[in-house]
Amino acid sequence: MSGSSFGTLFKISTWGESHGEGVGVVVDGCPAGLPLKEADIQKELDRRKTGQSKVTTMRKETDCVRILSGIFKGKTTGTPIALWVENQDADSSKYEDIKNLFRPGHADYAYQMKYGFRDYRGGGRSSARETVGRVAAGAIAKKLLARKRIKIIGYTKQVGPYVAQKMDFKQIEKNIVRCPDKKMAQKMIDHILDARKKGDSVGGVVELVATGVPAGLGEPVFDRLDADLAKAMMSIPAVKGVEVGIGFEAAEMYGSDCNDSYIAKGKKITTKTNNAGGIHGGISNGSDIVLRMVVKPTSSITKSQDTVTVNGKKAKIQVEGRHDPCVSPRAVPIAEAMMALTLIDHLMRNQFSQLK
Amino acid sequence: MSGSSFGTLFKISTWGESHGEGVGVVVDGCPAGLPLKEADIQKELDRRKTGQSKVTTMRKETDCVRILSGIFKGKTTGTPIALWVENQDADSSKYEDIKNLFRPGHADYAYQMKYGFRDYRGGGRSSARETVGRVAAGAIAKKLLARKRIKIIGYTKQVGPYVAQKMDFKQIEKNIVRCPDKKMAQKMIDHILDARKKGDSVGGVVELVATGVPAGLGEPVFDRLDADLAKAMMSIPAVKGVEVGIGFEAAEMYGSDCNDSYIAKGKKITTKTNNAGGIHGGISNGSDIVLRMVVKPTSSITKSQDTVTVNGKKAKIQVEGRHDPCVSPRAVPIAEAMMALTLIDHLMRNQFSQLK
Amino acid sequence: MSGSSFGTLFKISTWGESHGEGVGVVVDGCPAGLPLKEADIQKELDRRKTGQSKVTTMRKETDCVRILSGIFKGKTTGTPIALWVENQDADSSKYEDIKNLFRPGHADYAYQMKYGFRDYRGGGRSSARETVGRVAAGAIAKKLLARKRIKIIGYTKQVGPYVAQKMDFKQIEKNIVRCPDKKMAQKMIDHILDARKKGDSVGGVVELVATGVPAGLGEPVFDRLDADLAKAMMSIPAVKGVEVGIGFEAAEMYGSDCNDSYIAKGKKITTKTNNAGGIHGGISNGSDIVLRMVVKPTSSITKSQDTVTVNGKKAKIQVEGRHDPCVSPRAVPIAEAMMALTLIDHLMRNQFSQLK
Amino acid sequence: MSGSSFGTLFKISTWGESHGEGVGVVVDGCPAGLPLKEADIQKELDRRKTGQSKVTTMRKETDCVRILSGIFKGKTTGTPIALWVENQDADSSKYEDIKNLFRPGHADYAYQMKYGFRDYRGGGRSSARETVGRVAAGAIAKKLLARKRIKIIGYTKQVGPYVAQKMDFKQIEKNIVRCPDKKMAQKMIDHILDARKKGDSVGGVVELVATGVPAGLGEPVFDRLDADLAKAMMSIPAVKGVEVGIGFEAAEMYGSDCNDSYIAKGKKITTKTNNAGGIHGGISNGSDIVLRMVVKPTSSITKSQDTVTVNGKKAKIQVEGRHDPCVSPRAVPIAEAMMALTLIDHLMRNQFSQLK
Repeated sequence: MSGSSFGTLFKISTWGESHGEGVGVVVDGCPAGLPLKEADIQKELDRRKTGQSKVTTMRKETDCVRILSGIFKGKTTGTPIALWVENQDADSSKYEDIKNLFRPGHADYAYQMKYGFRDYRGGGRSSARETVGRVAAGAIAKKLLARKRIKIIGYTKQVGPYVAQKMDFKQIEKNIVRCPDKKMAQKMIDHILDARKKGDSVGGVVELVATGVPAGLGEPVFDRLDADLAKAMMSIPAVKGVEVGIGFEAAEMYGSDCNDSYIAKGKKITTKTNNAGGIHGGISNGSDIVLRMVVKPTSSITKSQDTVTVNGKKAKIQVEGRHDPCVSPRAVPIAEAMMALTLIDHLMRNQFSQLK
Repeated sequence: MSGSSFGTLFKISTWGESHGEGVGVVVDGCPAGLPLKEADIQKELDRRKTGQSKVTTMRKETDCVRILSGIFKGKTTGTPIALWVENQDADSSKYEDIKNLFRPGHADYAYQMKYGFRDYRGGGRSSARETVGRVAAGAIAKKLLARKRIKIIGYTKQVGPYVAQKMDFKQIEKNIVRCPDKKMAQKMIDHILDARKKGDSVGGVVELVATGVPAGLGEPVFDRLDADLAKAMMSIPAVKGVEVGIGFEAAEMYGSDCNDSYIAKGKKITTKTNNAGGIHGGISNGSDIVLRMVVKPTSSITKSQDTVTVNGKKAKIQVEGRHDPCVSPRAVPIAEAMMALTLIDHLMRNQFSQLK
Repeated sequence: MSGSSFGTLFKISTWGESHGEGVGVVVDGCPAGLPLKEADIQKELDRRKTGQSKVTTMRKETDCVRILSGIFKGKTTGTPIALWVENQDADSSKYEDIKNLFRPGHADYAYQMKYGFRDYRGGGRSSARETVGRVAAGAIAKKLLARKRIKIIGYTKQVGPYVAQKMDFKQIEKNIVRCPDKKMAQKMIDHILDARKKGDSVGGVVELVATGVPAGLGEPVFDRLDADLAKAMMSIPAVKGVEVGIGFEAAEMYGSDCNDSYIAKGKKITTKTNNAGGIHGGISNGSDIVLRMVVKPTSSITKSQDTVTVNGKKAKIQVEGRHDPCVSPRAVPIAEAMMALTLIDHLMRNQFSQLK
Repeated sequence: MSGSSFGTLFKISTWGESHGEGVGVVVDGCPAGLPLKEADIQKELDRRKTGQSKVTTMRKETDCVRILSGIFKGKTTGTPIALWVENQDADSSKYEDIKNLFRPGHADYAYQMKYGFRDYRGGGRSSARETVGRVAAGAIAKKLLARKRIKIIGYTKQVGPYVAQKMDFKQIEKNIVRCPDKKMAQKMIDHILDARKKGDSVGGVVELVATGVPAGLGEPVFDRLDADLAKAMMSIPAVKGVEVGIGFEAAEMYGSDCNDSYIAKGKKITTKTNNAGGIHGGISNGSDIVLRMVVKPTSSITKSQDTVTVNGKKAKIQVEGRHDPCVSPRAVPIAEAMMALTLIDHLMRNQFSQLK
């Protein structure tokens, strides 16, 4: 029972693999009447695409999106929107050599055990290439959110030991690691390039801030906003942890420090601090939603590693191919997309909380 | 659109609130033929119940469970199992005084905004009392997992600055914080009692280990095992973060350190390290599943805090009632239950991965 | 994977069996703020209950409903509403004798094959007693529909060869078969009592009319309004067929007769005829929704029948117990409930068809 | 909230409209290891396609299917299978003239009311062209069912007043109405052609028989096999009624005639008659599943009809385009596909009925 769908009211189903005919998504649940053209989607895909800079993989995909259904006279019709991006630069030759080896850190072994065999070309379905569909669908979600003045900002918070200190959001798209701290961005880049030179890779932390989110989003007790966001983020390849607001720091705090005191600003009630990251009891409280996710160092490295063959024989492996030495920069638009998809779904679900 | 159901094949729906008639759960999807009696469930509820020790709330609920349906001649019939625990020691008097105040750190304001009004008695549905249903359902899930030799061990890993170093699982149920490190347990207890004395509360970290989980569980690309576990954990009240395996440490690692090398142990393929926490590409790889969740300090504290009334007027609040000064000890069985529910659901879902 | 839930936004989960502790339902998705008391629900349960008249079973259940959660100060809170009806007059003694026989027309054999064993007392979960939960939940749905001026009228259209001709809705609750045609009602009653005297039972047709349904309900291409209504009706015990509008008569018609011509009535567009039964392309068109379902003759009859034992040995069976000689009169409130549940769910789902 | 998905474990999502880029489907939940090539699917699409004979529409679509994902080395990988059929012969010119008129019997008005505007070219999403995706997905379901020796046979049972008497299944694909009764087939054809000549259309009944279905399929109390089949059938365009086994005839029967007596055939228990159509209590009982659905006369007719414009002004309409004068012959493979999809889903769901 495959789990390639996400969302309950604004539902997406992605399909496709790294070296197949392409990758795509069906968006089921977008209301009729939204102006939508390919450029709206392309803009986001371009932020995710490969070969952007010296810190990303060299695979060159134009990631040109095509809308196959659901639009009439430039507007959504309320019926499923099918989006398709053809694979163009797939180079499977590198994978023939290692098809009988399990790449450390990769899903190879787990897929083999689950499905009995696996599409070893570029990782098949486990490749981050699958996230093209998410980013494409997320672009539509973002358009819907923008109408409600909800905005999502994502950036690299940390790479290796380097943590952004200054939060100058205008810097984000001006450097190739997508860091809001210009100085720290340079250190991050150096760190990444240094690792690549050594045939290695590095990890990082992506932070997301959503502004303009009204109070009331989240459906306790299981479909809490934070629970659904946690799932959304953890479903992104390479993510090993998620935290909201103060996150793991809370373990060492006292209640009197951690609790956010309520204050009134004019007619609006808000909180003095935002340790909760904008979510209380699983429901948005009107403050900014703040969350972080950690991405592990890219599994594919050219350094020699120990592994075994599919038959269990000892072997050495050097994963050639073309890979991002740090996932973080390109994970930013993917994380934004997943947050957008989660928020629009919850915005819809919240329509039924009160009698009208 | 309320979200009080969890699971796809082994599905539970919880209901009930802190000071209503009781709390309960309907379990839909348990196969026929499982021997099940109330004692199987009571055993787990007793680990979760209030008034266990000096580090838990003083509310005294016997939490006596009653099976209302789904059993015939001592065995499950394959039809819905309804479980009910009556509320007995609910004391709403303390809440009348603060019904017009928003308790800092609590869901009061968010519920008010979402639903237009709220059951202020004991937090209503947002109370951790709701988790009785989860633990009851989790007991059934655990019985099913035990038949496949899958076991879940939960414990307090950290309270305030104190982190368990020794992992002696036999110690866990021997101390009132459920810590596997006897010495550290005492420091944790002292830390909690000290905070309570000051009218304050403290945070902590719960760790879970699942042994015996076969490779293959998890349904990419969205219903990954780690994604569903993250949601399960984040849906527990007070949880602000979740990490799997190496978790947030990955940000500072190199790929060559973080990747788990494959090795063969006899006929079995496994990994030298378990930085992945038993999950690769969202699918279990046969190693132990390891995850951690952070619980914030209990929001209810007797210390005076700033807040506002429902009308936005400044006010002071001291939350009396009876509360756990640290959530962690009682969160252990709840977290175990959520993990059990997630694993049994994925065990079922994985039946369809390969043609038979 | 049990299927005891119905609905997507207004979701119900029923539980319980004929001779267990009782029957109940959890309603998840009712908006906050709806005034609701037990009497609102009791009213509908009383229309469904046993022992109403000489054409229904003699089992005497008061079917007294208890609200266990989801209400505060007389209003729904937006959280799950748990409803429970205790079984009181269950008499299992009659079933001990026939526990090794498969009752013809009943689910005994199918349940045995599916689950490996079965609760033979009163049919267990396959008993129509389960529909108590549906009717209880349906009462809430009806209250919500009434606020939108949507009304559902159900009645017995046919019993044996007797078909209602006059449609005087005021008559429906005045006769014990719930037929809008007073004269025909008497013939139906005589037919039923005559069958009972012979130890036999008879079939019938229930018709439902929903007025005030706005155009736009239904979610193509699978969750069409007619498709979901068909499922709802067919899920009721004893139902063997469903038709909307002109139904099976359409087979013999020409398009020029069957098509409903559009006409304008003031500013409103409607149709001259209503062969479509108010649904075009799976979406309500603003006309009355009209559908019919057929109920087979009650399977339990005292006449001697051929059957086999669970071991396949030839046997005779006379099903004693207390049974309705015709299902139709009590099926009316059940069918109404299922229609109400379907309509409220679709009313909610339709909120997202257009951008607002 | 669009409803373009069907199934719970074997899940399909269709997309596309009559005159857009094409129509397609994503199949999520097919186990890994099934040999699958385009020809397997094409075979079924060819039975559904337009321009087959003089009783079908003249639109000429080759309906050439392309597998875009989910296959590696000729076998399914357990990941989503995306199928795409390009539209080639879409002729929208005929629709410009009638874009401001509501075609009687069509979904035009309902779509307009629901979505605020509509793709008027060929009916857009409400066109039966959408069923291409269903038939394509159904071909995969049929392959899976065949491995369990489950077979589905569909045919035209009735057209206008002509009802098949002889059930010679070998005749079905030998005549253009797909009727198992050779003689009656000719009368049906004459009836259809006669209607077309007059610019009119006729209705019919399709019957389906599934053989080899094991006892135990169906998930009470809502996801009964008959309930899910009823939904599946009613979701097909033009269907106005569904009945299982004896169906509407049951209204006039006595229980003693309608009940199917159990008999033993060797070690197998079965029933003397099959009035139940193979389903008791919503669960298959091992006998053939038998159901019928009625299709109304095609709404598009060239005869002049009364209607109104989108502004409510009186008008006459003659629907030119290219249409089937009787839906039944091409509805056969569509109905078979929907039955196959329902059965495979329930076959999977039934895996969890008993403990293993």
